[in-house]
Amino acid sequence: MWGGRFAEGPSAIMREINASIPFDKALWRQDIAASCAHVRMLAACGIVTDADAEAILHGLDQIAAEYAANGVAENWDLEDIHMTTESRLAELIGPAAGRLHTARSRNDQVATDFRLWVRDAIDQTDAGLKALQSALLAQAGTHAASIMPGFTHLQTAQPVTLGHHLMAYYEMIRRDRSRFADARARLNVSPLGSAALAGTGFPIDRQMTAAALGFDAPMRNSLDGVSDRDFALDYLQAAAQCSLHLSRLAEEFVIWASQPFGFVRMADSLSTGSSIMPQKKNPDAAELVRGHAGRIVGCLTSLMVTMKGLPLAYSKDMQDDKPPVFEAANLLGLSIAAMTGMVADSTFRTDRMRQAAELGYATATDLADWLVRQANIPFREAHHITGAAVKLAESRGVALDELPLADLQAIDARIDERVFAALSVEASVAARASYGGTAPDQVRARVAEALAELEGEG
Amino acid sequence: MWGGRFAEGPSAIMREINASIPFDKALWRQDIAASCAHVRMLAACGIVTDADAEAILHGLDQIAAEYAANGVAENWDLEDIHMTTESRLAELIGPAAGRLHTARSRNDQVATDFRLWVRDAIDQTDAGLKALQSALLAQAGTHAASIMPGFTHLQTAQPVTLGHHLMAYYEMIRRDRSRFADARARLNVSPLGSAALAGTGFPIDRQMTAAALGFDAPMRNSLDGVSDRDFALDYLQAAAQCSLHLSRLAEEFVIWASQPFGFVRMADSLSTGSSIMPQKKNPDAAELVRGHAGRIVGCLTSLMVTMKGLPLAYSKDMQDDKPPVFEAANLLGLSIAAMTGMVADSTFRTDRMRQAAELGYATATDLADWLVRQANIPFREAHHITGAAVKLAESRGVALDELPLADLQAIDARIDERVFAALSVEASVAARASYGGTAPDQVRARVAEALAELEGEG
Amino acid sequence: MWGGRFAEGPSAIMREINASIPFDKALWRQDIAASCAHVRMLAACGIVTDADAEAILHGLDQIAAEYAANGVAENWDLEDIHMTTESRLAELIGPAAGRLHTARSRNDQVATDFRLWVRDAIDQTDAGLKALQSALLAQAGTHAASIMPGFTHLQTAQPVTLGHHLMAYYEMIRRDRSRFADARARLNVSPLGSAALAGTGFPIDRQMTAAALGFDAPMRNSLDGVSDRDFALDYLQAAAQCSLHLSRLAEEFVIWASQPFGFVRMADSLSTGSSIMPQKKNPDAAELVRGHAGRIVGCLTSLMVTMKGLPLAYSKDMQDDKPPVFEAANLLGLSIAAMTGMVADSTFRTDRMRQAAELGYATATDLADWLVRQANIPFREAHHITGAAVKLAESRGVALDELPLADLQAIDARIDERVFAALSVEASVAARASYGGTAPDQVRARVAEALAELEGEG
Amino acid sequence: MWGGRFAEGPSAIMREINASIPFDKALWRQDIAASCAHVRMLAACGIVTDADAEAILHGLDQIAAEYAANGVAENWDLEDIHMTTESRLAELIGPAAGRLHTARSRNDQVATDFRLWVRDAIDQTDAGLKALQSALLAQAGTHAASIMPGFTHLQTAQPVTLGHHLMAYYEMIRRDRSRFADARARLNVSPLGSAALAGTGFPIDRQMTAAALGFDAPMRNSLDGVSDRDFALDYLQAAAQCSLHLSRLAEEFVIWASQPFGFVRMADSLSTGSSIMPQKKNPDAAELVRGHAGRIVGCLTSLMVTMKGLPLAYSKDMQDDKPPVFEAANLLGLSIAAMTGMVADSTFRTDRMRQAAELGYATATDLADWLVRQANIPFREAHHITGAAVKLAESRGVALDELPLADLQAIDARIDERVFAALSVEASVAARASYGGTAPDQVRARVAEALAELEGEG
Repeated sequence: MWGGRFAEGPSAIMREINASIPFDKALWRQDIAASCAHVRMLAACGIVTDADAEAILHGLDQIAAEYAANGVAENWDLEDIHMTTESRLAELIGPAAGRLHTARSRNDQVATDFRLWVRDAIDQTDAGLKALQSALLAQAGTHAASIMPGFTHLQTAQPVTLGHHLMAYYEMIRRDRSRFADARARLNVSPLGSAALAGTGFPIDRQMTAAALGFDAPMRNSLDGVSDRDFALDYLQAAAQCSLHLSRLAEEFVIWASQPFGFVRMADSLSTGSSIMPQKKNPDAAELVRGHAGRIVGCLTSLMVTMKGLPLAYSKDMQDDKPPVFEAANLLGLSIAAMTGMVADSTFRTDRMRQAAELGYATATDLADWLVRQANIPFREAHHITGAAVKLAESRGVALDELPLADLQAIDARIDERVFAALSVEASVAARASYGGTAPDQVRARVAEALAELEGEG
Repeated sequence: MWGGRFAEGPSAIMREINASIPFDKALWRQDIAASCAHVRMLAACGIVTDADAEAILHGLDQIAAEYAANGVAENWDLEDIHMTTESRLAELIGPAAGRLHTARSRNDQVATDFRLWVRDAIDQTDAGLKALQSALLAQAGTHAASIMPGFTHLQTAQPVTLGHHLMAYYEMIRRDRSRFADARARLNVSPLGSAALAGTGFPIDRQMTAAALGFDAPMRNSLDGVSDRDFALDYLQAAAQCSLHLSRLAEEFVIWASQPFGFVRMADSLSTGSSIMPQKKNPDAAELVRGHAGRIVGCLTSLMVTMKGLPLAYSKDMQDDKPPVFEAANLLGLSIAAMTGMVADSTFRTDRMRQAAELGYATATDLADWLVRQANIPFREAHHITGAAVKLAESRGVALDELPLADLQAIDARIDERVFAALSVEASVAARASYGGTAPDQVRARVAEALAELEGEG
Repeated sequence: MWGGRFAEGPSAIMREINASIPFDKALWRQDIAASCAHVRMLAACGIVTDADAEAILHGLDQIAAEYAANGVAENWDLEDIHMTTESRLAELIGPAAGRLHTARSRNDQVATDFRLWVRDAIDQTDAGLKALQSALLAQAGTHAASIMPGFTHLQTAQPVTLGHHLMAYYEMIRRDRSRFADARARLNVSPLGSAALAGTGFPIDRQMTAAALGFDAPMRNSLDGVSDRDFALDYLQAAAQCSLHLSRLAEEFVIWASQPFGFVRMADSLSTGSSIMPQKKNPDAAELVRGHAGRIVGCLTSLMVTMKGLPLAYSKDMQDDKPPVFEAANLLGLSIAAMTGMVADSTFRTDRMRQAAELGYATATDLADWLVRQANIPFREAHHITGAAVKLAESRGVALDELPLADLQAIDARIDERVFAALSVEASVAARASYGGTAPDQVRARVAEALAELEGEG
Repeated sequence: MWGGRFAEGPSAIMREINASIPFDKALWRQDIAASCAHVRMLAACGIVTDADAEAILHGLDQIAAEYAANGVAENWDLEDIHMTTESRLAELIGPAAGRLHTARSRNDQVATDFRLWVRDAIDQTDAGLKALQSALLAQAGTHAASIMPGFTHLQTAQPVTLGHHLMAYYEMIRRDRSRFADARARLNVSPLGSAALAGTGFPIDRQMTAAALGFDAPMRNSLDGVSDRDFALDYLQAAAQCSLHLSRLAEEFVIWASQPFGFVRMADSLSTGSSIMPQKKNPDAAELVRGHAGRIVGCLTSLMVTMKGLPLAYSKDMQDDKPPVFEAANLLGLSIAAMTGMVADSTFRTDRMRQAAELGYATATDLADWLVRQANIPFREAHHITGAAVKLAESRGVALDELPLADLQAIDARIDERVFAALSVEASVAARASYGGTAPDQVRARVAEALAELEGEG
C-alpha cells in the first residue's frame, strides 16, 4: 500500500510530513538569540543557577559558531530547529541543557523566533525599498522635463514627463514602506513566556526578555501569544501590495522595451538572449518581477487559508506559516533588487517618448481647457468643440496644431491665434503646474522634497 | 450569434459590461460631497463665477434630497453615478451644470469618492469592532475565574479560564482596529485635482478641497492620484485578517455548541431549527461568520489579481475595484454584529467546561513544573517522570491527583505530599500568574486595563 | 450597542445574515422543476395521493407563472426560495402543501436546485464559447496569410500569421469547452432523496426523480449528496481558466490598440471616449474582460476557502456557495460575449502588423536554420554566426536581407546567395510548414478542421 | 546600493533571479527522455546523421546515469536543466552536441518536459488516491453497521453508520480521481516541434516524437504549444479540490480525537506528544493535512495570478509555473499518504459513537416520518408535533423513546405504541434503506460495488 517513497509505512510518512527542520533551520539565529535571552532571565530570576546559565550560554555560543560555519544539519528525527539545537546542547554540556526549556514551550519559542525573523525581513525589505526609491529619484531628477505620452487605457492621453511618471512609483514605494513600518510596530511585542498556552507558574520576568530581544513589551495574553500569526500575515500583505506595485512597473518596462514602443533599452545585465533567435534581447528580469507578484499573492493566500477557522490555541497547521513567508521574502527581495537595477541602469529613449507624445492628439484637453479659460465656455461644451477639431485633424492626418486657424474658427468662432501656444507638448506639461501636476517645476519640487525625506531618515 | 441576452449585438453587451451604476450608486453621498467641495474651490479661485457655483450647489442639494428619498435610478446609458448626477444637474440648472467638471476628470472624481466611501466604511467597522470588544470584556470579566480546558491541537492541554480565552480575542480585535486605523491614516490624502492623470492647467487649490473633505493633504503626484487603489487593498486586507479572527471564534462556538462539548448554549435569536429535524438548534450565525471569511478572502484576491500588472495611469479594469470592497464591507459588518451578539447573548456552560478541564490530565505540566521547582530536576527529566505518572493514571482510569502518593513516589522518590496542592485545576490556573498568564488575577487586571483603554477612546 | 443598521439587536442581525432569498431566488426555476419531479415520484410510489400531487403540481405551475411575471419577492422572514415557494403554495392549496416536503429536506433540495442551475450555466457558457470559436475561425480564415510579428517576451521573435495567432485562442477555448464538459459529466448525478443527510425511510424512487431532471443517476451516498459542492468548484475552476485565457487576448487587444502598436482598430460599439480627453478611443471592453478575470479568480478562491475544513454533512457556511458562482457566471458570460464582439468586429491593421514584422530581425532564426540545412553546421554554431550577422545589420541600421552577400560571407564563408530567399517574412512563415506551424497552408488546414469540428457538433 | 546579498550589482541579481536550475533540475528525467525522442526523430527524418544521433543518445544515457547517481549540480551560470544537460553533452561528445537543439527551442522543450512531469505526477497521485480508497473501503466494510451520530451544523441530526460516513469520502476521492483523469487526457498532447513559437522549417515528424513520449497527438498550434500552461493549472485545480476533501476528513479526525468526542484513537505512528505537556497525544498528521490544503490553494492562486494577462507566446513569467506545481505535488502526496495511514490505522471508538448517537434526540425525524406514514399527517404538521415531543423529553431530561405513550398521545392522539419501534437508533438507520441511504445493507451494497470498481481497474 505504501509503495515507493513511503515503503516503511506510516512512521516514514509521519517523519516526513512532521519535520519542519528543512525550512525552520532558517530561524537558527533567532532561536539562539531567544534562548540566550530566556536563560539570562531564568538566572536573573533565580529559576536556574548562574552556573547552569553560563554553561548553557557557552554551549549556545558554540552551536551558533557551528551553524555559521557549517549550516544546520537536517536530521528529521529531531523535527525542528529547537530540538536540533537543544539536542546538540545536551551533547555539549550534559543534563544542564534540560534546564533551558524551563518555563517555556516550543509554542512560545517558535512564535518568538518567527517574529524576530519577520522583523529582520522587514528591516531588509525596507532597506531594499529605500534603495529603489533612491534609484527612482535619481532618474526622476534627470528626467523632470523629459516628455512622454501619459497613458490611460494604454491610449495616449496627455503629455507627462518621465520624471513625473517615475515619481508615481516613488509614492507607491513610500506607502509600501509605511505599510511595512506599521507591520513592524504591530509585530514588536514578545510572546516569550506564554509557554504552551496558559503562561507559566515560574516567576519569570517577561519584560526582561522582551527588552533583551528589542521588543517594546510582552504580549498581554498568553493564548494570543502562541496562536497569533497576524505578524506573518501583515508581512505577506505588505509584500503582496509591494509586489503588485513592482508588477505594474515591470509591465511598463516590458511594454516600453517592445520594438513598437522602443521607450527603453534595458540594461544588458538584466536581459537575456534567446536559444533560438539570435537577435532577441528579452526583458527577463522585468517579466520575472511580474511573475513573482503571482507567487507572492499565492503565499499570502496560502497562509490566510491555513489560518481560517483554527480554534485556539496552537494547532499544527500553523507549522505551515513559515514556508510561504520565507518564499515571499526571498522573491520580494530579488524583485526589489532587480527593479532597482532596471530603474538605475535602463536607458530611456526620450527621443522616442517625445515623438510618441506628439502623436495621438495628446494636447486635445489643452484645447478644451483653453476654450473654458479664454472663451468662458462650460467644460462640457468645450469638450464637444475639441472633439470636432480632433476629428478634422484625424481626417487630414495632421496634428491639432497643424490645423489652420480658419478651420478651427469654422468649428468655433471663439478660437483665436493664441490657442496655438497651448497646443505644444511643452506648453501642455508646463501648464499643469497645480500641486502634484506634471509640470517640470512641480516634478523638481517633489523630487527635492523626497530627497530631503530620504536624507531625513538618516 | 448573440442569441438571448445580447440579441442586439455588441452595443447591448457594451452597455451592460460598461455600466457601473448598478454598484457605484452606493457612492452618491461621497460624489455629491466631493462635487460641492470642488465647485466651492472653483469659485474661490475665480474659475467659475459665484452665481454658477451657487446654482450648482443648489442643484446638488436637490439631487441629494432626491437620492435620499427615492434612491438612485439605474439608467445604464448614463453609465455611472457621476454621469447620472451631472445629467440630472443639467436638467435642473441648465448649461451651467457643464462648469462643474472644469479642472477635474472622472478619474480623480471616482478616486476621491471611493476613498471617502472606504474611509466611512473604516469608521463604521471600527465602531462595530469596539462594540465587539465591549462584549468580550463583559463576558471576560464575568468569567475571569471560570475554568475551562485550554486546548492545543484541540486536545486538552492545561486548564485556563474562559475570561482568559475571551481576552485573546480582545487582543486580536485590538490589532484589527489598529490595522484599520493604519489604513485610514494612509488613505487620508486627496486625489482631487489630479484630473485625468497629469493634473490640470487651471489654477486650482487642492489644499482647499482636501481640507473641505477631511483629508490631511492632497496627494503629491497626479498619476498616483488616479492609479492608486492601495487604500482599497488596505481595507480588504484588514477585513480579511479580521474575518479570519472571527472565523476562529466562530469555529469555537460551533465546536463548543456540539453535544459532546456542550460548552455553550447559543442564543435563540442567533440559531435556527431544521426543516426536517425538529430537535435541532443550529449555530447558523457562527457558521455564516466562518463562511463569510472565505468570501472576504475572495474579495481581497479579486482586487489583487485585477491590479496586477496594470500600467499607469487609469485602466478600466479598475472599475472592478468597487464590487469586492462593497461586498466585503457588508459581509464584515454583518459578521461583526453577529459575533457581538453571540458573545453577548450566549450562555456559557461553565459547569461542563470545568468538568472537561478536569479530564485529560490537564495538570500534568503542573506536576512537571513542581518537580523542577521543588526537586530541582531539569525540565526535560521532569517531563519524562510526569509522562510515567500520566501513563499509570491512564492505565488505572483515574485522575493524576487520585494516584496514591506511594505510587507517585515509586515513579520518582523526590515527589512528596505537597504535590497534590499543585494538581487541582484551580491551583493550576492560579499558579500561572506571570504577566499575561491565565491566573484569574491576571485576567482581571487585563480586563481592567482594557476597559480603561476603551473608555480612554472617548 | 447595535446602533444603526441593527438597532433591533441580534434578531435583526440574524434575519439579515441568515436570509439567502436575495440571491437564491435565482434558483426558482430549478426549485420548482425539482419539486414537480419530487411530487410526481411521491405519487407514483404511493407516498402521497394522486389528488394531493395534482393540487401541488397545479399550485407550483401557478407560482412559476407568478415568478415569471413579477419576479420573486424578497421576504427575509421566509429566508430562502424554498420556504418562499412552499409558503405561497400553502396559501394557494392549503394543508396539502405540507406533503410536498415529505421524504426530502432543504439540504438535498438546495443541492439539487443548485446543481441544476450550474448545469444550465455550463450549457449557456458552452454556447457562448462556441460563438467565440466561430468568430475566431472566421477571422483566422480571413487572415491565414496576414503576416504579423510573433512575440516572445513581447519582443519580436519570428514572423507568424494573424490567423495562426488567433487559432491559438481557438485551441484554448476548445480546452475550456472540454473542461466545462468534464464538469457537466461529473455534476450530472442527483442528490435528491439524500434528505437531511442519511437518506429517508420512505420508499422513494431516486432513479425516477434523477431521470425526470435529466440526471444520469442518483448519487450513491446521501451524506455526500448534501455535503458535496465539487460541482460548484468545478464550474468556478473552469470559469477561472477560461477567464485567464480571455484576459490574455484582452491584454493583446489593449496593447495592439495602443498608438505605438496600432495593430487593431477596436469596434466603436465596444470602445468609449473620455470625459476630459476628446481624442481618446479606449478599449474599455477589453480592459473589463481582463479585470473580470480577477473577480472570477476571487470567486473561486472564495468558495475554496469556505469549503476548507468543513466536517460532514451540511454546514451553513455552504450557503455562501451561491453568490460567487452566480457572480462568476454573470461576469464570464459578459466577458465571452464582449470578446466575441471584439474578435468579430475589430479591424486588424495588417499593414502595420506586416511592417512591424519586418523590423526587429525577425527572420534571424531563418538564417540560422538555413546554415544548419545548407551548410550542415551544428545549430549552436549557426546561432553564433547569425548573432554576428544581426549585430552587423544593427550597427548599419539595415535589415538582415539588406546586408550585402560579401559582408555575410565575411562572417561565414559558407553563406551563399540562396540565403536571401530565406530571409523575407513571407519565406519565413511559408517555411514553417511542419504540423501545427504558422505556414498559411497549415493555418488553412487547421481552420478547415476546426470548422468541421464545430459543424460536427450539430 | 546593492549592499549584502547583491554586492556585485545587477549581474549578481540577474544570475539569481534568472536561474531556474534550483527547481527545474527536477525535470531531468523528462528532459532526457524528450531529447532522446527528439534526436531519434531528427535522425529518422534525415535532419541529423545516424552517427551524430548515436553519439548524442549515448551521451544522454551517460548523463542520465550521472544524474541518477549524483544528482544534478546547480550551476547558476547554466541557468536551467536544458543548458546544464546540453553543456555536459558538449563535454562528452564535442560539437555534435550542438545538433541536438536543431528544430527545437527551449520554449517547446520545457513545455514538453513539464507536461511529462505533470503526467507522471498525476499517475502517482492517482495511485495514492486508489490506496486511500482501499483503506476507506476496508474500514467502511468493517463498520457498515456501526452507529454514530450524523451531524449537520456539527449538531447531532440523525443516526448514521460509520461505514456510510466513510463512503462519502470514497465518493469524493472517486471524483478527485476522475478530475485527475480528465486533466491527464487533456494534457496528453505534445508541444514538441512548436519550436520557439512558430513551428520550424525543418521537415520534422511531430507524430513520431509524440508517440515516442506516449502522447496521443501533437498539439495543433505551435503558439499554443509554447504558451499553454492549462495542464499545470488543471493539475493544481484537481490538487486543490482533493486537498479540500482531505481537509474535511482531517477536521473530523481532529474533532473526533478531542476528549469530549473521543470517537477515535489516532495511531501512535501519526501522532506526537508535547514538549511541555506529557499527557498530550496530538493529531499532528491530521492538522498538517488540513494546513497543507491552505498551501495547495496558495499554489493554485500563484499560477493563476502569474498567467493572468500574459500576451502570447512565451513570457519569462511562465518560469514561475514550476515551483507551485512541484510544491503542491509534494504536499498532496504527503497528505494522501498520511490520510491513508490515518484511515487504516485509527481505532474507531464505536462504543462512544453509539452512545453519542443516542443523545440529542437524533431519531426525532423518525417520529415525524412515522406520523406521516402511519397517521397520514402532512409532513409539516408532523414536524410540529415532533417538536412538541422533543420539548417535553428535553424538559424531563429523557430520551424520546423514554416518554410514556400517554404523554405522547397527549401531544397527538394519533400516536400509538407501534411508534416505539421507530425510535431506536438501529431502527432509524435500518429504515433509511432507499438507494444511497445509511441502512447497513445499503452501505454493504455500495462497498461491494466499490470494491468491484477498484478491482475492475486491474
